[in-house]
Amino acid sequence: MASDDDSHPTQRLDDTVHQRVRLGILAVLAEADQADFGFLKDALNLTDGNLSRHVQVLEEAGFIEVRKTFEGRRPRTWISATKAGRAAFASEVAALRELIAGVDRSRNDGARG
Amino acid sequence: MASDDDSHPTQRLDDTVHQRVRLGILAVLAEADQADFGFLKDALNLTDGNLSRHVQVLEEAGFIEVRKTFEGRRPRTWISATKAGRAAFASEVAALRELIAGVDRSRNDGARG
Repeated sequence: MASDDDSHPTQRLDDTVHQRVRLGILAVLAEADQADFGFLKDALNLTDGNLSRHVQVLEEAGFIEVRKTFEGRRPRTWISATKAGRAAFASEVAALRELIAGVDRSRNDGARG
Repeated sequence: MASDDDSHPTQRLDDTVHQRVRLGILAVLAEADQADFGFLKDALNLTDGNLSRHVQVLEEAGFIEVRKTFEGRRPRTWISATKAGRAAFASEVAALRELIAGVDRSRNDGARG
């Protein structure tokens, strides 16, 4: 899956998506329609503060939507990826695939050389 | 290539290596024994200042070595990955492979479901 231009794949990584915690959030949301705050926290082993901070960055970028509901008297925060968020995650994954393909190519060249 | 623990692969990413520019530097150095400053700058489309900053972070982490030489009167700065740097890059790539494998699994499940 080569790209159209010859720039290094890391040039096509967007820090908003690439950052470790945010990449984790978008990866979990890519597998589920929505996840609640506690689920994301456990899945990624984050503190409340750390998850909140990165959720805010992704929300401000338009990559996720945050919806607060009540179950009885218990508040729950539901998070889902937007269409733009899914597209941004797909671009990140495409660039990472290219990066890894480059590693594999160079490993094979080395074995031949 | 599943990991031994069931933590999310993004938990095994190290910000020192994962950061976009530094990941690019280590990827280029994984393919070459050494690269000079100008080559890295062009390959990753970076400014002097941006490359310098990230080279310094990687050097302080023990992941690269910087060697200054002269060719005639022209100074050149050679950069190479250390053994620790190659190992850290390999761990990053392993975690990214896992992340992508998860994406592919969930895509296939979706197609079946």
